[in-house]
Amino acid sequence: MSAVRLPQQSQDFPAWYGQVVRRAGLAENSPVRGAMVIKPYGYAIWEAIQRALDDRIKATGHENLYFPVLVPASVLAQESTLIEGFAPEVALVTRAGGKELDEPLALRPTSEAVIWAAYGRWIESYRDLPLLYNQWANVVRWELRPRILLRTSEFLWQEGHTAHETEDEAVREVLTILHDVYADVVENVLAMPVLRGRKSASERFPGAVETYTLEALMRDGKALQAATSHFLGQGFARAFGVTYTGRDGEEQHPYATSWGASTRLVGGLVMAHGDDAGLRLPPAVAPHQVVIVPIVREDDRVQVLAAAAALADDLRAEGLRVRLDDREEHRPGFKFHEWELRGVPCRVEIGPRDLAAGSVTVARRDTGAKATVALAALAGELPALLADVQAAMFAAARAEQERRTACPDTYAEMVAWLREAGGFARAGWCGGEDCEARAKADTAATIRCLPLGQRPAASDRCVVCGEASEAVAVWAQAY
Amino acid sequence: MSAVRLPQQSQDFPAWYGQVVRRAGLAENSPVRGAMVIKPYGYAIWEAIQRALDDRIKATGHENLYFPVLVPASVLAQESTLIEGFAPEVALVTRAGGKELDEPLALRPTSEAVIWAAYGRWIESYRDLPLLYNQWANVVRWELRPRILLRTSEFLWQEGHTAHETEDEAVREVLTILHDVYADVVENVLAMPVLRGRKSASERFPGAVETYTLEALMRDGKALQAATSHFLGQGFARAFGVTYTGRDGEEQHPYATSWGASTRLVGGLVMAHGDDAGLRLPPAVAPHQVVIVPIVREDDRVQVLAAAAALADDLRAEGLRVRLDDREEHRPGFKFHEWELRGVPCRVEIGPRDLAAGSVTVARRDTGAKATVALAALAGELPALLADVQAAMFAAARAEQERRTACPDTYAEMVAWLREAGGFARAGWCGGEDCEARAKADTAATIRCLPLGQRPAASDRCVVCGEASEAVAVWAQAY
Repeated sequence: MSAVRLPQQSQDFPAWYGQVVRRAGLAENSPVRGAMVIKPYGYAIWEAIQRALDDRIKATGHENLYFPVLVPASVLAQESTLIEGFAPEVALVTRAGGKELDEPLALRPTSEAVIWAAYGRWIESYRDLPLLYNQWANVVRWELRPRILLRTSEFLWQEGHTAHETEDEAVREVLTILHDVYADVVENVLAMPVLRGRKSASERFPGAVETYTLEALMRDGKALQAATSHFLGQGFARAFGVTYTGRDGEEQHPYATSWGASTRLVGGLVMAHGDDAGLRLPPAVAPHQVVIVPIVREDDRVQVLAAAAALADDLRAEGLRVRLDDREEHRPGFKFHEWELRGVPCRVEIGPRDLAAGSVTVARRDTGAKATVALAALAGELPALLADVQAAMFAAARAEQERRTACPDTYAEMVAWLREAGGFARAGWCGGEDCEARAKADTAATIRCLPLGQRPAASDRCVVCGEASEAVAVWAQAY
Repeated sequence: MSAVRLPQQSQDFPAWYGQVVRRAGLAENSPVRGAMVIKPYGYAIWEAIQRALDDRIKATGHENLYFPVLVPASVLAQESTLIEGFAPEVALVTRAGGKELDEPLALRPTSEAVIWAAYGRWIESYRDLPLLYNQWANVVRWELRPRILLRTSEFLWQEGHTAHETEDEAVREVLTILHDVYADVVENVLAMPVLRGRKSASERFPGAVETYTLEALMRDGKALQAATSHFLGQGFARAFGVTYTGRDGEEQHPYATSWGASTRLVGGLVMAHGDDAGLRLPPAVAPHQVVIVPIVREDDRVQVLAAAAALADDLRAEGLRVRLDDREEHRPGFKFHEWELRGVPCRVEIGPRDLAAGSVTVARRDTGAKATVALAALAGELPALLADVQAAMFAAARAEQERRTACPDTYAEMVAWLREAGGFARAGWCGGEDCEARAKADTAATIRCLPLGQRPAASDRCVVCGEASEAVAVWAQAY
């Protein structure tokens, strides 16, 4: 950890992001282009996200399982839109066990194909449905423009794959995952407000009938797709010849869904909450919620360290995740900067004068506010303080999202707003691919989503062509 | 689940094993030779094992992280013994993103190489040591003779990789992992008694100075290596040019360890505890610790199902994992067989006569014993009953291990014992590779370990050549 300042976020966002990821110890590049090492601090955040997702995935009736990472190229190719979508990103094993393989094996870019090949063996009757399964896995997608944590040649994720008797049930599943699993975690655990919506046809997952998405806004005004949930219709069942005997005795194809969230959420946390001093972590996912920094001089060292250790024990007994930074080789100021850079939500300073006064200094990372708190009251007060930090971070991010959302009346206004990466532009859209393509060419922005149950746009005309609007669309540049 | 009987375990152990794995819903083969699908029931067992291991790995001071699955062939080759050991099993990616790669990328067979390449960047001074890291990952080793869950082309595991200032500290680490993490989980969670010992030189991990192992005995008399913990000395640090500035200001190489346990433990559970009726699961890892089977007739159906559901809620409130099997399409006898096959430790039968008498019938899977228990007392009594099942399964497995351990006086006796896959043979060994190789050629058995702190053998002579014994060795055929 060096004392060299970070680039200013507002001056050079990409450089700022790269340095925060590296210097906060989240991740670093590996010898394989585009692949990353997730370091312990970054991985601890990912484990907290995993737990939050996994708890909700199980609470909504799903079970985990595991499919192989290697998929025969012919199996991957069986659903044509899937392979067309992913072919440019596939990595192939052609040699194994000292021999050329008869058929190349793809590293899974996603697992619909290998899973639906198995579902054909598992589904016979309506009694076997629904299948509600999820896996935690690594996937490989060869990236031409990798960006650490956001777009990497290998990433970690969960992918749910379900099979249903009816279209209604499958659509309900897709929305349950979107709202009760993903939005709940992203908003209430990661403190990132999201738009919930459908994708336009051009932005759908390959093979999907409908793709639902959560779109979060980063502090440079660009959008991040936080998670997606796909209604796949009967296409995969048809492609893999999966049928079941229905209640009426007839053979029919089940309906499919798939849905995923990945380690890019860790990158999203950096960009949604970070500031010029570095990372700011919501308490719900912070590996250390509280860092205690003892302020010692030679003559009171033993006493202060003992009090700091006792305080750490008290706070841990309250169920808090506490780091006691008693390293001797660094001065308090250095430690303050380091833990600010690493985003610890709350810092407690304890020194000889504090001890004498029976109090400590508590500093919040989100606002920088400092307060003096009675030592005896701290363990009782910190949980509420951390809950307040969590809520305040969400509120601040939501206010920022609102500030950065425009409702342009004219196409010229929209182009100007989006070119400066101003944030979200909410406007009417005729539903035409030409208008979508024109706006993309003019602004580098895409339709992030057609929001669910949102208020209408300023005008009921398409902001691009002026024809009647079919839906409200939200445009933005995106990661 | 069909009513067709399993093969008898004593008649055809491999066929019995294969059918239990498949019919209990643990795993099945995938389209890629040697790779498997871990099904929800098998994966739930693996998740319980993961939690048990991960808790202990963290309690002993380690943090999790994640390294890429793809390793440049040149990095993998940097430590020569490692690549010599694994080259025949490596799978290579040669194409990605639509192009031939300049350098093939290996799918990690294990991660020492890619990790030590990074440790070189992370270690500068003794203050950076120890590094105590672990990862949960998939690995690929091309298997010529795959066996589901035991030896598969892809498997899931954890691999710990640590770096230390001194040899003493590294050796302590290796033994802490062996005893406090692995043996604690395998014996006290999986109820599998193990021998703890060192490997002979010929059985060591490629690149290890010393390999420690846990050896369990399966019910066909073959051994299963349950987990290994390696002291790697300074070889990896030298190969990857990793040095640190010591307390004396001198540059020196750190000492390395690595250690792993994998999904083969799920296969071990089947073979260590299963019987002619199928799987028997220790309560600590059973996805369902208790199954409730309502016995209904048309006229009391509602009443019995309501009582069964209320009982399930009561037991869940005690923290038990409960499955209420209220499927209408199967009769109770079918369900009894199915849950016996799937190894649920405890079955509760509840019918109209039971209800009238205010009692239920409780059947133990491990012994088959049945008892009548007052309905009101069940929630209070089941935790103790499950603890007793856990202890009884360990005791039974230990008794079986003792019964199957011979201490032959002569080489002829040892050969006869091992040829019949009798189990462990404990005898003196001169330490010579010739004697080890001769015994292997004659019996197909290998030295499983040189037990730690064990009682001496019957004789202080080598059982093969009659020269002075250097150590007590335990021979067995093995998976």
